[in-house]
Amino acid sequence: MRTDMCGELSAGDVGRRVAVCGWVARRREHGEHLAFVDLRDRTGVVQCVVDGAADLRSEFVVRVVGTVRHRPEGTTNDNLATGEIEVGDCEVEVLSSAEPPPFPVDERIDTDETIRLRHRYVDLRRERMQRNLRLRATVNSAIRGAMEEQDFVEIETPMLIASTPEGARDFVVPARLKPGSFYALPQSPQLFKQLCMVGGVDRYYQIARCLRDEDLRADRQFEFMQLDAEASFVGQEEVLEFIGRAVSAAVEAVTGEPVGEIPRMTWHDAMERYGSDKPDVRFGMELVELTPVFSATEFNAFKAPCVKGIRVPGGAEMTRNQLDALTETAKRYGAKGLVWMKVGEGRELTSPVAKFLSAEELAGIASELDAESGDLLLLVADQRPAVRHVLGLLRLALGRPPVNEGGLRFLWVVDFPLFEAIDESGSPVPAHHPFTMPHADDMALLDRTGEDLLAVRSQSYDLVVNGWELGSGSVRIHRGDVQTRIFELLGIGEDEARAKFGFLLEAFRYGAPPHAGFAFGIDRLVAILAGEENIREVIAFPKTQSGGDPLTNAPTPIDPAQLAELGLRVLPPPS
Amino acid sequence: MRTDMCGELSAGDVGRRVAVCGWVARRREHGEHLAFVDLRDRTGVVQCVVDGAADLRSEFVVRVVGTVRHRPEGTTNDNLATGEIEVGDCEVEVLSSAEPPPFPVDERIDTDETIRLRHRYVDLRRERMQRNLRLRATVNSAIRGAMEEQDFVEIETPMLIASTPEGARDFVVPARLKPGSFYALPQSPQLFKQLCMVGGVDRYYQIARCLRDEDLRADRQFEFMQLDAEASFVGQEEVLEFIGRAVSAAVEAVTGEPVGEIPRMTWHDAMERYGSDKPDVRFGMELVELTPVFSATEFNAFKAPCVKGIRVPGGAEMTRNQLDALTETAKRYGAKGLVWMKVGEGRELTSPVAKFLSAEELAGIASELDAESGDLLLLVADQRPAVRHVLGLLRLALGRPPVNEGGLRFLWVVDFPLFEAIDESGSPVPAHHPFTMPHADDMALLDRTGEDLLAVRSQSYDLVVNGWELGSGSVRIHRGDVQTRIFELLGIGEDEARAKFGFLLEAFRYGAPPHAGFAFGIDRLVAILAGEENIREVIAFPKTQSGGDPLTNAPTPIDPAQLAELGLRVLPPPS
Repeated sequence: MRTDMCGELSAGDVGRRVAVCGWVARRREHGEHLAFVDLRDRTGVVQCVVDGAADLRSEFVVRVVGTVRHRPEGTTNDNLATGEIEVGDCEVEVLSSAEPPPFPVDERIDTDETIRLRHRYVDLRRERMQRNLRLRATVNSAIRGAMEEQDFVEIETPMLIASTPEGARDFVVPARLKPGSFYALPQSPQLFKQLCMVGGVDRYYQIARCLRDEDLRADRQFEFMQLDAEASFVGQEEVLEFIGRAVSAAVEAVTGEPVGEIPRMTWHDAMERYGSDKPDVRFGMELVELTPVFSATEFNAFKAPCVKGIRVPGGAEMTRNQLDALTETAKRYGAKGLVWMKVGEGRELTSPVAKFLSAEELAGIASELDAESGDLLLLVADQRPAVRHVLGLLRLALGRPPVNEGGLRFLWVVDFPLFEAIDESGSPVPAHHPFTMPHADDMALLDRTGEDLLAVRSQSYDLVVNGWELGSGSVRIHRGDVQTRIFELLGIGEDEARAKFGFLLEAFRYGAPPHAGFAFGIDRLVAILAGEENIREVIAFPKTQSGGDPLTNAPTPIDPAQLAELGLRVLPPPS
Repeated sequence: MRTDMCGELSAGDVGRRVAVCGWVARRREHGEHLAFVDLRDRTGVVQCVVDGAADLRSEFVVRVVGTVRHRPEGTTNDNLATGEIEVGDCEVEVLSSAEPPPFPVDERIDTDETIRLRHRYVDLRRERMQRNLRLRATVNSAIRGAMEEQDFVEIETPMLIASTPEGARDFVVPARLKPGSFYALPQSPQLFKQLCMVGGVDRYYQIARCLRDEDLRADRQFEFMQLDAEASFVGQEEVLEFIGRAVSAAVEAVTGEPVGEIPRMTWHDAMERYGSDKPDVRFGMELVELTPVFSATEFNAFKAPCVKGIRVPGGAEMTRNQLDALTETAKRYGAKGLVWMKVGEGRELTSPVAKFLSAEELAGIASELDAESGDLLLLVADQRPAVRHVLGLLRLALGRPPVNEGGLRFLWVVDFPLFEAIDESGSPVPAHHPFTMPHADDMALLDRTGEDLLAVRSQSYDLVVNGWELGSGSVRIHRGDVQTRIFELLGIGEDEARAKFGFLLEAFRYGAPPHAGFAFGIDRLVAILAGEENIREVIAFPKTQSGGDPLTNAPTPIDPAQLAELGLRVLPPPS
């Protein structure tokens, strides 16, 4: 039906009789009978000079047989890959006619997202979507290649699984053969991959479909894809190496450049320096420790357990209104207040609170923050976690580059705390799932109680890029004695443990190897590589934020007979 | 933690100090202190000579550091890849202890399937399961490679889709954000892949998870994987080429031998010669046309529209009881009766009905069927479809080799009829989905009515191997006028068409390219390549035939609060 793809014709094809197929992208009259018809397929556009094209309209699907020739001098188009040539002497066959498209396929024209999704089959013809979908396929392929090279075996875990009481909300699927019972759709293959390790699979991977019934936003869909991996007889070092290679392969396949060694940062450093466990290190504006500067301060607001500051280069130009707005923002983030200081031409600090501070303190601020003339300094004093949190968010709000700027800055954040807090009853709250192995050096700390337990680090690690948490993993507990101690600490009794994790705990009794794993989200990685802020731009058929699909109208009511077969009744809406 | 894999050590490693990890497969005492410990990982087993191994029990997970040495003369084991060597001078570290396994991991010992699935993590340690899972991964990888080489782009279509009234029963998923509404899980990505074609994707593929809520059996699970593909501006020839290459790549990756050109057979020939649209051509016993032999018969039973026979080589040895049982079997298949004839030493035919047949008829039977002394001949007379059906099944029952014998005989069955029957109202019943393109040569036949419509062939094709339908595909209708005519013929009114296929039909209005596609089941292909009769043997975590998972206990009741959130109530079981 065709000999060539539209976008691949070039001066080297001049003189050839070719057949190309595609959609009419544009038609411009050229004299009385002739028209220029731009024909588009997935590779690009080629100009065809057609006689009697009056009935060729936008988005008609046609087959053109013609001869490639140079464009007349002065009419070449440098912006187009095929801009040197055109197809002349054309015979045109209309394969399908088309109604006028609901929006122009030309992507320079902005279209409301709901309309785009409603007619996704038109939207997909846009170069941006074609490029994003191909990029996604390239990433998948590179990741699989890297995992297979490292001897990981792809194993498909089930979609219809048992509902678990942990984590986010499960999607459930009524079981017709056992009315009143339900399968759950997997939030991740976590339990199955650990079972694979007990089953001697040694190295497992899967690009797995995961589903969570959580409210949607720009970076979250009900369904998402993750590279899921687990390996036996390895620890954290090996996992970081495995996953690093997969990510590097994906990035190299898209950009041509491998990632190289991914730097590491402890969770503690990340929190202290960036106020975030997923620091965006594309830019500086690090959080600077100022607590010692105020060890003997007279200024009440700075008599706090922690004072930190950030330096906003050139920020001294902000108006009073802007600074007031910034203060409001800081308060929304949870700050009690925000102290700002402008750095003058002689590096002197101007601030409403300057008069409450000693000369040494002012000099200390300027020196610790490396203040330069024209900067704005922002200081927060409070409990340490609150200071980090507020300044971390202010830093992002003031300095974060757009998604497609500043390159790709991957980072391993390691040594996460095992417990993220101590609850009112004095029990620690786990930061990850309760099978996360404590840090080998911190085993003795498990005998402590209360706040002291927060010092216990875990063997867990996150992969971060440009301020996004791409994924996380951990070394798992495979030893019964350690698991028992962790359950004790978490206040999980034997019955509860059996109810929640019964089959995994049982499996572990039959010979569990040491194992560790990781999972990272493909949608987010692809979005960053594509320079897209919104993951919906890298998903062929996404849901809207209300969970619907404007194209197919899903979700819909179903047949009463099918409901009855499932042993279910729909309740009337609450009045 | 380890330097080597157990099964990869060989005489070349003699003298090396190695570290290996794995499960204790066997322990045999060897003198007072020493024991032979067979250590198993996914690559195989190695013998370790351990001092003081009294506390090493079956399935303990251990790390052994030792020195590779030749086994003493006369103690080598040719049945074992590592049989020339052993690991001596061992230090052993127990990584995990283990309770006695619920069944021996040694696969020579048969274990009930439910017990195996209940403890799948032990079952997976068996060499057979390890091999099958790796084979499956190899097949997936080879298929993806072949599709990508042919410029197909992997696109992930959604799991949460709109329920469709067509085909098998959907699994449904209650929508929390729209109580009373449901998503469906995809039975296949059919509609989405056609939308991709309208969207200019040009060549789409996916190894897709599909789900059907149908009763289970040995070759069917609720969930299955299929290679799903679709291409634009191509016809049947190209699709057969694309898919043939993918299948060949998979087979070559496993067996080392490519499939070569896959032969084709028309649906009509398959039915006439094998009585099946998925003929197992690993063996002969073809159906032979005998109708002309009896054109003037006096024997009432053979005064039928169709008489066919098969020849069972060596079948004359069957006893009367066996023949009676065979007749019963034929009747269960729907036959009015079964005529059997034994071929004697002088090629004379012995049969209870011989006396009703003329000498010419007897000679005609022997000659048409190429009867040889010692054969059994089986004849059925009836309407043509019934004759083909019964003899096709008898042929399989009497001649079909086991799954792992007779090689791989792939076959394209082409030119399927467009309609599989005419219903009582005179309307044709579609053999495939209603977007299947009629055969180009048969377009004029669409104007016929009634039984005459059965002559219309479609541009659809099945891939068959060893009597299994691996998959099927078709050229789709992309022209509105043809689609309208097909809907008319099927008695599908405009409203019904809109309700059932609305969004696809709408998409087609905006410029649909000619397109064609295919899908084939990976589970069945892997099972055949693994020599397994039952697809559960090539699935890591399958469901039992009642749809349950003995390991995780799925499906289960869910929390009443979650049900309420979904706006659902479970009905009491019917009394």
